[in-house]
Amino acid sequence: MQISARNSFKGVVKKVEPGAVNTEVTLEIAPGIEVVSIITKSSAETLGITEGKEVYAVVKSTDVMVAID
Amino acid sequence: MQISARNSFKGVVKKVEPGAVNTEVTLEIAPGIEVVSIITKSSAETLGITEGKEVYAVVKSTDVMVAID
Amino acid sequence: MQISARNSFKGVVKKVEPGAVNTEVTLEIAPGIEVVSIITKSSAETLGITEGKEVYAVVKSTDVMVAID
Amino acid sequence: MQISARNSFKGVVKKVEPGAVNTEVTLEIAPGIEVVSIITKSSAETLGITEGKEVYAVVKSTDVMVAID
Amino acid sequence: MQISARNSFKGVVKKVEPGAVNTEVTLEIAPGIEVVSIITKSSAETLGITEGKEVYAVVKSTDVMVAID
Amino acid sequence: MQISARNSFKGVVKKVEPGAVNTEVTLEIAPGIEVVSIITKSSAETLGITEGKEVYAVVKSTDVMVAID
Repeated sequence: MQISARNSFKGVVKKVEPGAVNTEVTLEIAPGIEVVSIITKSSAETLGITEGKEVYAVVKSTDVMVAID
Repeated sequence: MQISARNSFKGVVKKVEPGAVNTEVTLEIAPGIEVVSIITKSSAETLGITEGKEVYAVVKSTDVMVAID
Repeated sequence: MQISARNSFKGVVKKVEPGAVNTEVTLEIAPGIEVVSIITKSSAETLGITEGKEVYAVVKSTDVMVAID
Repeated sequence: MQISARNSFKGVVKKVEPGAVNTEVTLEIAPGIEVVSIITKSSAETLGITEGKEVYAVVKSTDVMVAID
Repeated sequence: MQISARNSFKGVVKKVEPGAVNTEVTLEIAPGIEVVSIITKSSAETLGITEGKEVYAVVKSTDVMVAID
Repeated sequence: MQISARNSFKGVVKKVEPGAVNTEVTLEIAPGIEVVSIITKSSAETLGITEGKEVYAVVKSTDVMVAID
């Protein structure tokens, strides 16, 4: 499946922290660059998200803000 | 200002494409890793977004999806 | 690719309206049920979105609100 | 109230799963077409979301992605 | 219609700036407090959004970030 | 840090309700105008969000919908 979301970063799962409804997933997409994602617990289980797994972080371009110092 | 959005990536603006209401901004946050952002044209002007400028890409963790091959 | 977004609806493209930066895409996912999507013009071109094409509408569950009469 | 969100689908609540802060609600908007929504537990209670209730799933068009096989 | 979005602010439209696909709407929800919204041009027309009109700004709680100085 | 999100409202924290992964924060941005935000528990702790603290509610303009009666 190819998706309209413009940002897709290959990475490795570093940490998985399940809550009641949501799970927090931390990925490393480049040395020292980590991305934190909140997905439903159900999705995390369906996708088999576990530490060390190769995954993609996917983000719509309208969800990326830009900031300056 | 420090924000609750968990993801903040330092980068350099590579491309700025203004539309009527929105502007598309492409940043490089690591060698070969580009992030595309859509912000309002007004924000792009206020922040002075131009090619070569050092900026941050900021993303809420609930806006990051996870995908597998 | 399999994604964490919980909602994925197969449909057919009914209308494509390109703007300067964004394109509005209307899909029919069931008889009489249409979904409107705004994606970047660039994504619409990359995915080859044209009338009649079979596509999926994909939505994160946190982006679905519930309303009552 | 009439809202700017372009997508509004009438449906019936099939499942309600409350967590600590959020509640996961599953609706059926057409035979075999289910939509999953995460709303705050407080909203679910205020709206009286229970199995069998007639509700609407509401989604902004910028939150709908398009994917192809 | 009553919606799960937790934030709903009554206000008056101060400015309407239509683009090709999207329209930027500025509302005043309290003296000196303005909210900027981007909705589709089509929604703005359907809702009859014009300067001086009484409207509501509606925001999901997951779309509100918190920042500190 | 200055961010592209167009909406930034100064306020005071009225209530903090932590869940397993997310925390619900209620701010007052003007007399009688409250904003509810869901952020990760981790962000709430990092920012030191407690009742009475002066903070900002930050919202992207694409995340603001408009509704009429």
